[in-house]
Amino acid sequence: MNQSITQSFSVPFTYKVHFDKDILDVDNGLMAGLFQSKFKPKVLFVIDEGVYTAHPSLVKKITDYSNHHQTYTLAGSPLVLPGGEQAKNDSSILQQVLDKINEYDIDRHSYVVAIGGGAILDMAGMASTIAHRGVRHIRIPTTVLAQNDSGVGVKNGVNAYGKKNYLGAFAPPYAVINDFTFLSTLDDRDWRGGISEAVKVALIKDKDFFVWIKENAQKLAARDMEVMAYLIYRCAEMHLDHISGGDPFELGSSRPLDFGHWAAHKLEQLTNYELRHGEAVAIGIALDTTYSYLQNRISKEDLIQVIELFLDLGFDVYIDEVADPQVVKGLEEFQQHLGGILTIMLLESVGKGVEVHEMDAELIRKAVAQLKAFQESSRPIAL
Amino acid sequence: MNQSITQSFSVPFTYKVHFDKDILDVDNGLMAGLFQSKFKPKVLFVIDEGVYTAHPSLVKKITDYSNHHQTYTLAGSPLVLPGGEQAKNDSSILQQVLDKINEYDIDRHSYVVAIGGGAILDMAGMASTIAHRGVRHIRIPTTVLAQNDSGVGVKNGVNAYGKKNYLGAFAPPYAVINDFTFLSTLDDRDWRGGISEAVKVALIKDKDFFVWIKENAQKLAARDMEVMAYLIYRCAEMHLDHISGGDPFELGSSRPLDFGHWAAHKLEQLTNYELRHGEAVAIGIALDTTYSYLQNRISKEDLIQVIELFLDLGFDVYIDEVADPQVVKGLEEFQQHLGGILTIMLLESVGKGVEVHEMDAELIRKAVAQLKAFQESSRPIAL
Repeated sequence: MNQSITQSFSVPFTYKVHFDKDILDVDNGLMAGLFQSKFKPKVLFVIDEGVYTAHPSLVKKITDYSNHHQTYTLAGSPLVLPGGEQAKNDSSILQQVLDKINEYDIDRHSYVVAIGGGAILDMAGMASTIAHRGVRHIRIPTTVLAQNDSGVGVKNGVNAYGKKNYLGAFAPPYAVINDFTFLSTLDDRDWRGGISEAVKVALIKDKDFFVWIKENAQKLAARDMEVMAYLIYRCAEMHLDHISGGDPFELGSSRPLDFGHWAAHKLEQLTNYELRHGEAVAIGIALDTTYSYLQNRISKEDLIQVIELFLDLGFDVYIDEVADPQVVKGLEEFQQHLGGILTIMLLESVGKGVEVHEMDAELIRKAVAQLKAFQESSRPIAL
Repeated sequence: MNQSITQSFSVPFTYKVHFDKDILDVDNGLMAGLFQSKFKPKVLFVIDEGVYTAHPSLVKKITDYSNHHQTYTLAGSPLVLPGGEQAKNDSSILQQVLDKINEYDIDRHSYVVAIGGGAILDMAGMASTIAHRGVRHIRIPTTVLAQNDSGVGVKNGVNAYGKKNYLGAFAPPYAVINDFTFLSTLDDRDWRGGISEAVKVALIKDKDFFVWIKENAQKLAARDMEVMAYLIYRCAEMHLDHISGGDPFELGSSRPLDFGHWAAHKLEQLTNYELRHGEAVAIGIALDTTYSYLQNRISKEDLIQVIELFLDLGFDVYIDEVADPQVVKGLEEFQQHLGGILTIMLLESVGKGVEVHEMDAELIRKAVAQLKAFQESSRPIAL
């Protein structure tokens, strides 16, 4: 007997990403409505310590909201946990979430709601994905970066073996709620950080959006909330479009949304995560844009536009670690994570990416030297 | 701004389940062919200690096979690990697999091949699913149960908090290879064990298959390999059909393939896994079939046919633990794992299941008493 059966099926996923403000005000029914069911589900809240510190009334607001709406039962007090990279580096934090999921019998029709930055959402998302092979998970991202990028997508994970996101899964959330209210308490670095992901999608996919960001750079730097709300909406929309239109679970080798990310991941590591993800992405994009210019893919004017935008927004385009020979090794680690052939996104023009399968170490070094010059020059910058 | 974006996409999955023998003979090109690519991928083998003991030449065969075919590189020596429930209970075993995946840089285009019973496949499958958010995983199930049921499906997992499969994920394998050669060294309990899952799918879905199993019960009990090969093929085929036709990642509350399983899971736990899964499932099916009779859903003749089949195959339909009041609590745990409304499969007739949403504790006790009488009576059994 030498036979085979081909198994083949598609799994449909759907979830909503909401954009709103003051979602924990008792007269805002959005979140309470998500839990509406004949079972009155249990809901475990996981809160980023940084958010809790900036919003000391958060736990009380959650309790009041729950008591008012009665569409769900709180699974104990909200669990306040360290956010940032620590949430992903320290495996005992993931364990604490799993412990609570078990303790409060969160089942596949119950919910884990995480409120915080991208790191805590990734960690809580992973716990929710592996407990019972998946309990429902709602993300309430509180940073620009998480609201327009990581929080709206389908990935979760934690770090292991000194490698970023080494353990994780692809698992769509049950819903995402972007509450702009949380942005008002961000420090300037986190306010700014997520803008680099918007510049990224604009550069590889939408010239008009890039032009819009350029035009609104001063307002963004001055913390104009209305402008930021649109930037987040449009960036999230483009990320979502990309995910649904492509290869949501990354079964292939291509990862166009990782434009600028191979160097960024390495820079985060080399700075012990002192450099935040969005800041590292800004440098990574600046590097790959400069590299694209040095390969005659884009014009000098386009390059200068991109670099000036980052500088106008308050980003550095160079730090000493970029010159570390380790950075080039980041290319290898990036390939390894995906496997298969090295696939890197570069720019063909502003608004259009192009995939390449090799990068030249010498040209990377030239690009790094150019970045250093950009960083040190006064504006308007020149080549 | 109060807006929302609905994200919606489908993820297609496809994999082959192969049925063959002597797959590690150098002149069998099946497995080597799976790895064929321009990259010469790395392959980490994980082997069930029980299989290794029964086939001491296994590691040498794998090495010889790899050297002969050259379509892949061995990622170190095959990792031999304890099989059975220990593989899922001891979290250090999962950790060892992750350590090796990291040590040998297994990436998303490299492979983890697990050879063994259902437990080690579940554990290695989970490691493969969470490392790099999923490296390729090939299952080579070596027991009847794993070849016709757990090994061909999309679930993996390990036990935690004293609960079976508490942590895990839905993740289709890259391929499954059922090698019948491994069945010849199974002890009688493991040879028999998996037959109960075939009886299960036959009872809820295919009367003709049930009749075929009845007719071949003596040959199955006498370890006729050809008859077993067909039983495995047909049972695997029905499981695969069910998965692809329904709700592969169990987003709903229904789990028809778990006919007889609510009690089975509890019995495994109450016997500290002395009772093996297939044996527990036989008792669970006998219980729910008797319960179906007591509810006037099926005829006395049908009930007797089912019980006699299990006894003919060498299964017990009763052990003292079935009478433990804890068993009824298994219903609650079963519901909790899935969440939502309790959904239990009973029989409407031989070959047709019916879902119900409650079970009566008193009637369960009556069914248990009846099982005891069946077990103690001589054959032909009678009500």
